Parts: sequence; structure tokens; C-alpha cells
Amino acid sequence: MTYNVRLLLEYDGTNFHGWQRQAGLPTIQGTLEEALARITKQPATLFGAGRTDAGVHAAGQVANFRSSLKLTESSWVKAINSLVPPDIVIRSAEYVPPEFHARYSAKSKVYQYTILTSEQRAPFLRNYVWHVRQPLNIPAMQEASGYLIGTHDFSSFRASECVAKSPVRTLDRLEITYTQLTATAGQESAMPQIRRDFLIPLNRMPCNATMILFTLKARSYLQHMVRNIIGTLNDVGRGRFKPSDVREILEKKDRRYAGPIAPPQGLVLLSVIYDDVF
Amino acid sequence: MTYNVRLLLEYDGTNFHGWQRQAGLPTIQGTLEEALARITKQPATLFGAGRTDAGVHAAGQVANFRSSLKLTESSWVKAINSLVPPDIVIRSAEYVPPEFHARYSAKSKVYQYTILTSEQRAPFLRNYVWHVRQPLNIPAMQEASGYLIGTHDFSSFRASECVAKSPVRTLDRLEITYTQLTATAGQESAMPQIRRDFLIPLNRMPCNATMILFTLKARSYLQHMVRNIIGTLNDVGRGRFKPSDVREILEKKDRRYAGPIAPPQGLVLLSVIYDDVF
Repeated sequence: MTYNVRLLLEYDGTNFHGWQRQAGLPTIQGTLEEALARITKQPATLFGAGRTDAGVHAAGQVANFRSSLKLTESSWVKAINSLVPPDIVIRSAEYVPPEFHARYSAKSKVYQYTILTSEQRAPFLRNYVWHVRQPLNIPAMQEASGYLIGTHDFSSFRASECVAKSPVRTLDRLEITYTQLTATAGQESAMPQIRRDFLIPLNRMPCNATMILFTLKARSYLQHMVRNIIGTLNDVGRGRFKPSDVREILEKKDRRYAGPIAPPQGLVLLSVIYDDVF
Repeated sequence: MTYNVRLLLEYDGTNFHGWQRQAGLPTIQGTLEEALARITKQPATLFGAGRTDAGVHAAGQVANFRSSLKLTESSWVKAINSLVPPDIVIRSAEYVPPEFHARYSAKSKVYQYTILTSEQRAPFLRNYVWHVRQPLNIPAMQEASGYLIGTHDFSSFRASECVAKSPVRTLDRLEITYTQLTATAGQESAMPQIRRDFLIPLNRMPCNATMILFTLKARSYLQHMVRNIIGTLNDVGRGRFKPSDVREILEKKDRRYAGPIAPPQGLVLLSVIYDDVF
């Protein structure tokens, strides 16, 4: 009998060379497969919903593997967590039907990207945001994002090494929200919606900063599509592109017209949505 | 002419061997003194208000140095920031009277310590909290903390290598606050007072977790005093000690009676208070 096990997991991608197994390099998939092999005494293959790049994080990654060993769901969680480093954690495990595949069964994946604009950098956020020194024109970025929502040929936002058969993808959602962070004194800085005692040390913020959050939802993405979109929207925010330029960039279907790729650390795979309630 | 310059700075202590200069090891003081020497072309000595241990953070450390070079205050900030790694940032620099000394002029120092209690660990918080698996009895810890407030001989909470002349210190404040973090679904977890979109990826929380925050204020501390107090209060929270045991531990004036030292990563030097408005 072979069982199909689905894992919900979270990781800080800072110290890994991405999701995908690579000989001799620490990766999320490789680390987890090693743990599974030690538990099941058999080679294991883990299928992940999103193959995150080096430095990209996941708050709600989903993966599945097949095993002839049957543990209780909570034993899977404890056994794997005891064998992987503290920057990875399995939140839950459950038995799913044999046809379930973390990647192919996914109905959509939600990514978030964070830009922090502030004159000074933020040491506690250095691995979790793209720090941009100059203020960005957020309404212009919001206007530009409207051209990207829907079904398009995203060739202009696709990595040259992307192996997908079709460059057409449907972006269901691309929202840009932000919060202005203001300082009350030299040593005091506060995020208005957040209780100040929880800001420290995690959210300690430079004075007069703006945190810009991009939320994207699609069934699937081309390689580097999210980061190429963010890099281009950042160029809109800087005034290098007009919002309507983004429509033209899309129409060119040529990577050379879009902006540079955004750095990985601002990106997090937030959740993966399946037909079953999960 | 020699100028006295005061710096307000912030650092993530994860990758440093503490504040104090040590030959051949990365430290905050050593890193900053090297930057100052490159700017001023002279050896520099930096006096810090608090000599934080390896892995301890600072959101509002204060330090001063003397220099015959006179730059504008904002030039000091930019010059130093351009020469130090992104886990350190200088927030401000200002000229102060010659008698100012970051450590000896300090009227008080505020430290915060964070314990996260949750069955599962939290990858994004691993360098910023002490993760404790079992729930702690917070009212008992609060009761115990009452015995420590005020002027006492803190020998029981003093590192054996502490060189202070007197073991007597005055703890002006020791407050314990907490927030229960509840989960709404497998993939959703929220801190009630915090906008959820800013939780990610930084504050992504395990389900059913409690964040316990300790705030301490004193003019000065013995070596490891804060971490020994937290380790002892944690033992009260676990039920190893009764609250009133803490009074007896204090009276024993012997380190062997208190609890184990708490790990460094939960600790942050929050602010240093001087007579002048800063």
C-alpha cells in the first residue's frame, strides 16, 4: 500500500539555495527529502506547489510525497521537524487521495512582495524586504498594475531559462497596498496599526518609511514572473516608465523591454489554494 | 580641536560576537571602529552604552567617539553606513559636550526580552525570540517579578565573570505583558492587534501561540543580569519555582540558586535615556 501525504510548511529562505534539490547545496526540497528518507528508510521524492528561488520565503508552501510507511499525521509533523533545521517547520500533515499532486492540483497560488522605501535601511528587515531609498509613486504603480491583471502573454516578464510551454498566464489579482510609517522622536518609530511592543525587535522601522505590499494571485506563473513584474512596477514608481508603458511592454512580448528583476528576499509564497478546504 | 560625537544605532546581533571588540571576530564595536578609522584616518575608540552579548540585538544603542575631523552630522551617518554591513545602521549622529560618555552619562537603559510559547517553532522569529514549547503561568511570573523590582543585591543573577564592584542594582521597572495569537484555519494565523498583511513574512505565527514580552528598566545591570532574571522567571512560569522562591533566591546572594541563563536572541537593547532630550 502506498500513501500520499500532503504537508503544509513554512520556511525562511535566507540560508537556502531555493526549493529545488541541487547536489551539494542546501535546498528546502533536498533537506526535507533527506529527513523523509531517514524516517522511511527509503528514497523520497517531494513535490512542491511552488519552486521558490534562493532567498525567497514561504509562509504557506504545500508539498506531497508517497510513502509505504504509515505514521499518524502528527507523528509525520514531529518526526520531520525533529530532523530539519529551525528555519523550516512543518505545520501539518494529512493523508490525501492518490491523485493529489501539490503542484498540478493547485487552483491558485498567492504570493506577496514587500518593498520598504526609506532613506535609511532597516537591519531587522534586510532579509524580508526590498529596500528602496527614494519614495515611489504608488498611484502610478497601481494604475500600471491594472494592465497586467487578466489573461496575457507574459513573455516580457519571463526568465530566459523558463521552460513553460506557453507564455500565457492569467493573473487573477495584483493589489498594491501600503502603510506610511511615521516617527514621533529620534528613538521612537511606530507603525500605526501595530501595537508598539510587538514591533521590537522585529518591525523596528526607520523614520518616515513606507511599506508597500504587492499581493498576486494566479493558478500558475512563469519563471521569475512575479519578480519581473515587481521590478517593472518599481520602475513605474520611480518614474522611469509611465503606467501605460506597461501595456506596451506586455505587447512587445520581449523580456528586454521590462524592468530589471526584483531581488528575492521581498517575496513570500503566502498560500496555495486547492478545491478541498485545507 | 577634538569633537565628541554621539551615535544612535540599531543592529541585528545574530551574526556578531556581541558589542565588544575581539581580535579576529566580527563584533559591533570592532566593525564600527574600523569604519571610523577609515573615515578619520586615525585609530578610533567607540564607547557603547550597553555591551550586548553575542546574538543580542539593539534597537536604540547609543555610543560616542572623539575625533579631530569635523563632518556635518548627516555626513557622519552616511559615511559610517556606507562602510558597515546591512545588519548595522546608524540612525543619527550629533555633536555633544566633551564630558558626555555613552555609558557613564546614561540615566537608564531599557531592555526587552521576548518568549514565544507555542507547540511548534516559528522560522521567521528564530533569531528574535526564545521559543518555549509549553505554556507558561504568566500571573505567577508577574507575581515573582514584583520581588525583583527595587534596589537589591543581585548576586544570584550575576555572571561569575562579572567585574562590577558592587552587586547592588536598582531595577526601576520589570513588566510582563503578553498577547495570545489565535489561528482561524490551517493556513491562517493572526495577531489580533496587527494588520494581517504586515505579518508576512515577518510575524507569521504558529497557531495558538503566546508572545510574552518582558520590559526592564535600570540605570545599570550586572553582567547577564537580564538573561538570568528571564531564565528564572521562565522556571517560575513552568512551575519549577513558586513566585515567592524568587525572593529567597535573591536573599541567597548565590548564582547557583537561580534558574539557567535565557538564550541571547530574545533580548534587545531598546533605548538609553540621558538627561538631555535625545
